[in-house]
Amino acid sequence: MTKNVLVLPGDGIGPEIVAQAVRVLDAVNEQFSLNIQHESALVGGSAYDETGSPLPEATLAKAKAADAILLGAVGGPKWDKLDMSVRPEKGLLGLRSNLELFSNLRPAILYPQLADASSLKPEIVAGLDILIVRELTGGIYFGQPRGIRILENGEREGFNTYVYNESEIRRIGRSAFEAARQRGKRVCSIDKSNVLEVTVLWKEVMEEVAKEYPDVELTHMLVDNAAMQLVRAPKQFDVMVTGNMFGDILSDAAAMLTGSIGMLPSASLNAEGRGMYEPCHGSAPDIAGKGIANPLATILSVAMMLRYSLDAKDAADAIEAAVSKVLDLGLRTADIASEGCETVSTQAMGDAVLAAL
Amino acid sequence: MTKNVLVLPGDGIGPEIVAQAVRVLDAVNEQFSLNIQHESALVGGSAYDETGSPLPEATLAKAKAADAILLGAVGGPKWDKLDMSVRPEKGLLGLRSNLELFSNLRPAILYPQLADASSLKPEIVAGLDILIVRELTGGIYFGQPRGIRILENGEREGFNTYVYNESEIRRIGRSAFEAARQRGKRVCSIDKSNVLEVTVLWKEVMEEVAKEYPDVELTHMLVDNAAMQLVRAPKQFDVMVTGNMFGDILSDAAAMLTGSIGMLPSASLNAEGRGMYEPCHGSAPDIAGKGIANPLATILSVAMMLRYSLDAKDAADAIEAAVSKVLDLGLRTADIASEGCETVSTQAMGDAVLAAL
Ligand SMILES: CC(C)[C@H](C(=O)O)[C@@H](O)C(=O)O
Ligand SMILES: CC(C)[C@H](C(=O)O)[C@@H](O)C(=O)O
Repeated sequence: MTKNVLVLPGDGIGPEIVAQAVRVLDAVNEQFSLNIQHESALVGGSAYDETGSPLPEATLAKAKAADAILLGAVGGPKWDKLDMSVRPEKGLLGLRSNLELFSNLRPAILYPQLADASSLKPEIVAGLDILIVRELTGGIYFGQPRGIRILENGEREGFNTYVYNESEIRRIGRSAFEAARQRGKRVCSIDKSNVLEVTVLWKEVMEEVAKEYPDVELTHMLVDNAAMQLVRAPKQFDVMVTGNMFGDILSDAAAMLTGSIGMLPSASLNAEGRGMYEPCHGSAPDIAGKGIANPLATILSVAMMLRYSLDAKDAADAIEAAVSKVLDLGLRTADIASEGCETVSTQAMGDAVLAAL
Repeated sequence: MTKNVLVLPGDGIGPEIVAQAVRVLDAVNEQFSLNIQHESALVGGSAYDETGSPLPEATLAKAKAADAILLGAVGGPKWDKLDMSVRPEKGLLGLRSNLELFSNLRPAILYPQLADASSLKPEIVAGLDILIVRELTGGIYFGQPRGIRILENGEREGFNTYVYNESEIRRIGRSAFEAARQRGKRVCSIDKSNVLEVTVLWKEVMEEVAKEYPDVELTHMLVDNAAMQLVRAPKQFDVMVTGNMFGDILSDAAAMLTGSIGMLPSASLNAEGRGMYEPCHGSAPDIAGKGIANPLATILSVAMMLRYSLDAKDAADAIEAAVSKVLDLGLRTADIASEGCETVSTQAMGDAVLAAL
């Protein structure tokens, strides 16, 4: 059976890094006879420029039909002044929400070859391997009512709503516990239950979910403390589960602990395990078009896609091994450049991974 | 004229650390003939235990009458199961809100003597000196509506409201720009304006405020990026200004960059400059009563109080110099213990600061 992958290069460095990832996908497709087909579509600022919408109907239709989606990145200063409703980010948020990709898996892993890149002391981060499970289709990102209104005294007031119901919390809780089962069997749920009622419910439902997984340990931590603990002693965590907004902040902090966010892939899954795969980093408009961006996070996103959505574990393993080998060979893009290593271009990094495959 | 200070020891290690801070306050009071009087009152869990309320009427009345307030810390597992409305944190939030202490100044400073304590590489944090200005009486902490309700399908739903009006944003903006004028003249405003309307307004009003301060530079950063940049290169910041929730998370992360959160004071000020002063760290119930807590953040909070609310700059300078001298002498409490230094008790640290005065 043919599997269909939709490729969404997006904005900024998106097209460059996705190009290398697609070469890798093509290579394993042939090598492992995976019968994968792919086509491309527009999303984000480039889609807005061409069609007036950051998520054109055609793209959404293809996304719904696909078995998996590979995304580069969206956004850039060029579109910063646009109305919120047509900004590039709405393309990304629209995909997440329309496809119900509620479970966002963001690993923060320190590659031993890149230990130096971290701003933290080696002993604090050596061997780091955390998985942040972030709720992606609810919370304050999507809560209603929202907007900016004029008050009676003529002043403006901005407002958003942070809201979760039980089933939303339960399903992301189960994602986290399932993931923990495959790993260190520990889930730390992050809330602000000493202040926010919505996270009091979050904490309660996590306790209920924990009963379904007696083999997995559940602890709770306040979000401010979690931000501190990530800086102080990140290796204390196995799986962290949290809402959309806290997850946005904590997963970026966690990724940066490794010093090499250019290496980190992510998966956003729906209830059937179909998903969208993208690097953790953004569209980096400042280096777009220069051919120096790191394609490895996107290449590793292909590996995640093969593993989680395309039932091709061997091909995923092969890609991850190839990336590791390339690092062993001392090849680095500029973002992870290091003394004694060779700094290479986006394309040359793609070449090297292909050669290692 | 007599100045009145209200002392609120609170819970956990609160009473121990406040006791040392009050000894220091008494000493400078005499030394500099400051004419300061102080009395104590109950707040937090200990107030709940005694009166059924985390913020008894009597405490609030005294707080309103005081020229300044010195707080230890509130909260602990003992009160975790209480209804949100009477939890210890409500005592703290009630003080902030009733006294309109909207401007929370949280310095993150690395003491050169404690450079080793950080989990970050020395070159990343040496000389670190950031000021986080956090809005403290609005945003999602106080927004209405809020609660947990039962939906038609029988499910529970939790909800909170993230709301700011123009004047709330303008006054905290001015606080930040005023503070920046006394420092590096750079303000970085933190928002999530690519997703949340309330922070679109935040960003706009910050731009308006910036026009009043042509000598101060304003930049903007998304909160997820800010969390990353704090880990990657914290010295890029001078003053950061943000809302209540983001400020809670980012200020704790920033404090932890120094590795010695037991050293960091904070001020919460109202429009007249009256304020509440407290250590950045919490009530640390795990070490309460052991006499090992670090009193220096609370002692330094006294210095902030003298400077900002009691017009006693010399006394503030004297306390800060005394703390620095004690660190030079190699005295450390357990939280900042270091090889080659002497680990001392809470009381002994208080003694040492008094001796150095
Ligand atoms: C681009 C933006 C809307 C997005 C988010 O906030 O979710 C990004 O920061 C991310 O984390 O994927
Ligand atoms: C105790 C809690 C309510 C409080 C807050 O969230 O503001 C604390 O974390 C702080 O930062 O002062």
